[in-house]
Order: sequence, then C-alpha cells, then structure tokens
Amino acid sequence: MSTQPLAGLGEFELIERIMSRLGSVAARDILVPPGDDAAAWLVPAGAVVATTDALVEGVHWRSGEHATMGWADVGWRAVASNVSDIAAMGATPQHVLVVLTVGPALDLEALDALIDGVSEACTAHEVHVAGGDIVRGGETSVSMTVIGSATADASGEGGDVPLLRRDRAREGDVVAVSGWPGASGAGLALIEAGRADEPEHAALVAAHRRPHARVALGRAALAAGVRCGIDVSDGVLQDAGHIAERSGVGVEIDLEALPVHPRAVAALGVDGARDLALGGGEDYELVLVGTEDALRALDTPEVPVTLIGRVVAAHPGDAWALDATGARYVPTRAGWDQLRS
Amino acid sequence: MSTQPLAGLGEFELIERIMSRLGSVAARDILVPPGDDAAAWLVPAGAVVATTDALVEGVHWRSGEHATMGWADVGWRAVASNVSDIAAMGATPQHVLVVLTVGPALDLEALDALIDGVSEACTAHEVHVAGGDIVRGGETSVSMTVIGSATADASGEGGDVPLLRRDRAREGDVVAVSGWPGASGAGLALIEAGRADEPEHAALVAAHRRPHARVALGRAALAAGVRCGIDVSDGVLQDAGHIAERSGVGVEIDLEALPVHPRAVAALGVDGARDLALGGGEDYELVLVGTEDALRALDTPEVPVTLIGRVVAAHPGDAWALDATGARYVPTRAGWDQLRS
Repeated sequence: MSTQPLAGLGEFELIERIMSRLGSVAARDILVPPGDDAAAWLVPAGAVVATTDALVEGVHWRSGEHATMGWADVGWRAVASNVSDIAAMGATPQHVLVVLTVGPALDLEALDALIDGVSEACTAHEVHVAGGDIVRGGETSVSMTVIGSATADASGEGGDVPLLRRDRAREGDVVAVSGWPGASGAGLALIEAGRADEPEHAALVAAHRRPHARVALGRAALAAGVRCGIDVSDGVLQDAGHIAERSGVGVEIDLEALPVHPRAVAALGVDGARDLALGGGEDYELVLVGTEDALRALDTPEVPVTLIGRVVAAHPGDAWALDATGARYVPTRAGWDQLRS
Repeated sequence: MSTQPLAGLGEFELIERIMSRLGSVAARDILVPPGDDAAAWLVPAGAVVATTDALVEGVHWRSGEHATMGWADVGWRAVASNVSDIAAMGATPQHVLVVLTVGPALDLEALDALIDGVSEACTAHEVHVAGGDIVRGGETSVSMTVIGSATADASGEGGDVPLLRRDRAREGDVVAVSGWPGASGAGLALIEAGRADEPEHAALVAAHRRPHARVALGRAALAAGVRCGIDVSDGVLQDAGHIAERSGVGVEIDLEALPVHPRAVAALGVDGARDLALGGGEDYELVLVGTEDALRALDTPEVPVTLIGRVVAAHPGDAWALDATGARYVPTRAGWDQLRS
C-alpha cells in the first residue's frame, strides 16, 4: 500500500506509457502535438473558453479498502467535471491538459486504469489530450484544464460571441434543470452504505462515478436563444444562488417540481432525494434560465429538461426553495463547500 | 505548523480574498472574466498555445525551517516556469489558470504571500489570471496552465503559423543559449549551504527564486527566422537532447563556450558551474537552433545570446558535450528527473 512502485520509472518513460495508452485520444493532428514545450492548435476568430478543476485523493474520492470509486472512475470524473464547465457556457470543449500528481497509492496498474478512464471520458465527450505534466507527491491528485471555443453569432450582432453566463437572469425568466439532480449524491450515499453492487442502484452509482457533461444541451440552449446557465456542482440551490447573486435577482425553486430520480426516491425517500437535489454535489446537470418557450423546446426523452422555478425581484442575490404551501424550505444537507472541514 | 488555519474560511471566501489581492492582475476586461463556469476571451484567427506545469511542496521546494524559498517565490516560479514554455514556442503568453491545493502548512499569511508572488510574476510577464480552482489537500501544490497565442506569418505562407519547435533542427545549424545557464542550480546549492544571505550571491539566489521567462527573446527569434527552440528546465544537455531526439540529429555543445555566471564560478569553481549549466535544472533560459547570422543578431547587453555548439549528422538523437580536446565530456550532476527518487 505505501510502497512507491512507480519510483523505478522516470518522468519520460511514464509520459511515453501514458501517451501510448491514451491512443487516439492524444491530440496528434494539431499544429504542435504533445511532446514540445507547449501544444498549439489553429483556431478561427472567436472566443477561447477555458476552465480548470482538480480532484484530490481523500477529498474528492477515497481509494483502497473503502474506495468510493475505482481509478478509472477518477480519470473519467476529472474529464467530465471540467468539460461540464465548458458545457455550462454553451461552448464546445476541445482540448485537455492534465497534471497528474503521483502519490504512493498509485501503482502501475492504478495508473493504467486512471488513464483508461481519462481516455474513455475524452472519447465520450469528444475532446483530446493536448499536453500535461507528471510530478511526484505525497498524495495522488488530478488537475485538468479544458479549453474550448465559441464562435461569433450567426445572426451577426457586430462580432458578438454569445455564451451562457451567470449574470444574465432577468425577472420573469423561468428556471429549468436537466436530468435528475441529486442522483450523484444518492449514488454516493449508497456507496458509503456498502450497497453499490445492488443492481437496482446501478444508475445512481454510475451518476456518481461516470457523470456525463451536458455539452450538446449547452450548445442547443445557446442556439435556442438562452443566455444564462450554470452546471450543478454544489447542488441546485447553491448553484442557482450563484446566478441570483451575479444577476442581482431572486430565484425561486419549487420543491415539488424538482425531477428526482425514482431510484433515489426508492432508496432515500422523497425528502432525502429532494434534499440531495437541492444540496448534494457533483451532478453536472445544467441549470438554465430563459424564456419558457426556449426552455420547453430543449426537453428530449434522452435528456429531460424540467421547469423548476422562476426569476423574481424579491430576495435579490438569493435562491430559495419553496414547498407546496409557498413557504421557504431549507434542505437538511447543505451545499458542498470543499474547504470547510 | 500542522494546524489548518484556513479551515475556517470557505471556498468562496478564499476565492474572494485571492481575487481582491490579485488586483489588476485578475483578467477583468475579457469577454467572461473569472467568476463564471469558465473564462472566455476573444482571439483573432491563428493558433492557441497552451502548457501546464505543477510545483509540489517537498518536491519542487521546501517550506518551513530549511526553506529553499519563501511563499512569494513559489507563486512567482509557478508563473515563470509555465510562461517559459510559451516563450520557448516564440508565442505570446496571455492568460493563466491556477489550481491551488491548500495543505496544512499554508496559513493565511503564507497564502497572501503566495498570491503576491503570483501577482508580481504576472505583472513582470504581462499575463493575467483568468480563473482557477482551490481545493484542500494533505500537501500544498500549485498547478498552472498558461494559454497564449501566435498569429499567422506576416510573410503569408498560406496561413502558416510559425513557432519554435523541437523537431526543426537541421545539420549545419548552430546552437545558442540565452543568459547564464546553471545560475539557478548554483543559487540552490548556495541556499542549501546556508549561504543565501551573502550579498555577492544575490543574483544566483534570485535566478533560483525569481527566474524570468524569455518571452521577448522567443518572439524575436521567431521574427528573425529561427524555427527551433526549447527552454532549459532540465539542464542544457538534457534539453538539447530533446531537440536532437525530436529532430533526428546530433547536437554538440562546446564545454568552454558555455556562458557560466562569474559568481557561480567564484562559488563552485569552473567545473562545478559548467556541470550545473549542463545538468542543473530550472534555468528557464532558451536554447535556440538556427543559422549563425540569425542567432548572433539576437544577442543584447540585457539578455546575452551565446553560440555554444552545432547540429551534426553524427550520434542522431543525442546531445553531447565536448571538452577542449574534442573528447566527449559527461557532467557529474545529471539532469533533473523528478520521478526518480
């Protein structure tokens, strides 16, 4: 467990092993592929959209005997969580840069699995690895940067590049969410309870270990004229709160309108499932704010988009959940704030 | 020492503190400034150039009683080492994304100093912080991504975007290096010997703690028609070896031509100073390969550019150092390979 089985491999051997294992996911056809001082690729005039996010062993996941996920899941999630931030702008993710900090728990088998997870998530999200860095450390972590692009509006508003922004909610807009928020939190609760292998919970466990970023939905929302959105990384209430704060409006979420996963209700009860939707983390669904017509048109059988609330003038800067009587409802489980112990 | 004095601050309070301390170095005037799901900025048609690099406490620096540098130096170096990779492409660095992993040793005072170092280095290198992530961890580390741009050749070779690449060395080219390679290694040796405060060593210690990336030189080299370069992060010999390998040529470095810092010679002897130039790390000077005329024209009093060798057909894939008799010389201190203990 605490040996350092990668110590015998040098930095360059490890990079070669990783690049070879990434296969077609390595960005080999760009202007300057991985292996130079920096990667380079051609872009048309428009906007570069970039985000960065890290997963740390023991904070974002546990390995070993009471593991919350396998190494391949860690690799997958690192990609999906970053791609989700680009999806939440309505932009197109393209290239990934990876910093891998190799701690004692990461042996060669674990490294290979982690890279396989990165590779599978890159394939699923249509992005390529353009570069990275590998360093030694006392704990394993994966930092990623995803860089994408957005192009000028076809309607030609003077070279404007439209994006989904947090500060674009206006009084009278409605609020929608994709998928089943809280599913990831329910999956984690089942994993922690030692029930991850029960077949009826597979969808919830997969929501935690293998989330899919909503890239196509973000782009479709932008094309439909929606200009405000965020991804759900800290629970619907906290993330809708960011929109309220940045837009200077109030947001109201109807508790009973929340699309909770039927399996989450079965496992945790309707109150538990709703609290996880409001305050659980890491769903990577999108909260979208716009006109009712635009949002309704985004709903599909594969990725449901459900209206859950509205933008109001009251309580500016805050998102409130309201129960069936119209009273403010405060979930038991608060949003995920990584730095508070 | 091992308390967690940042634990009382939440993620958002920390981000606010950091953004406010970054001041004018935060990218506030871009299309989507920090504070949304991702940052976005407008670019003309051309190439995006991107690199990522991490510094880990205990690996790349030591804090505490036997510190190799202060927290502000750590912040500075994280910026400079990443910007250097963009400089080594001949591109223009523009935006920085920062992942800060907060370990137990990082109290508020240390955090502020680290951010001040980031801010000072961003100002010196004319880049802005466009985003980041802050996470809790068992050790402190700083991962950065620097994103820059390069534009199509003014001479208009069919939309070609010229860059300095490792695979562009040709037999008959000459090899040059900027500044005084080995100065950073000599500075570290003096720090380790407890002599960092001796005034005559200030320049060497600064070379280790506050290196300057050679952005203007990289761009000037590209403008002068040079198409091959690398930055010196692992010693001249190992980095010239990357050029030899990627270009399928041999590189010969004349030991006596190496521009070693006079203070490094005074402190470590000429052999010690040369070994550090060949095999010491983290100088962030540029090795450039091209025609003699082009390289000679880059030499200035502020940033000397010295011819140190040539590209040959012999020993393809390898860079050799040669002594005054023309015999192969192997330095005692090997290049820096982070993952070998």
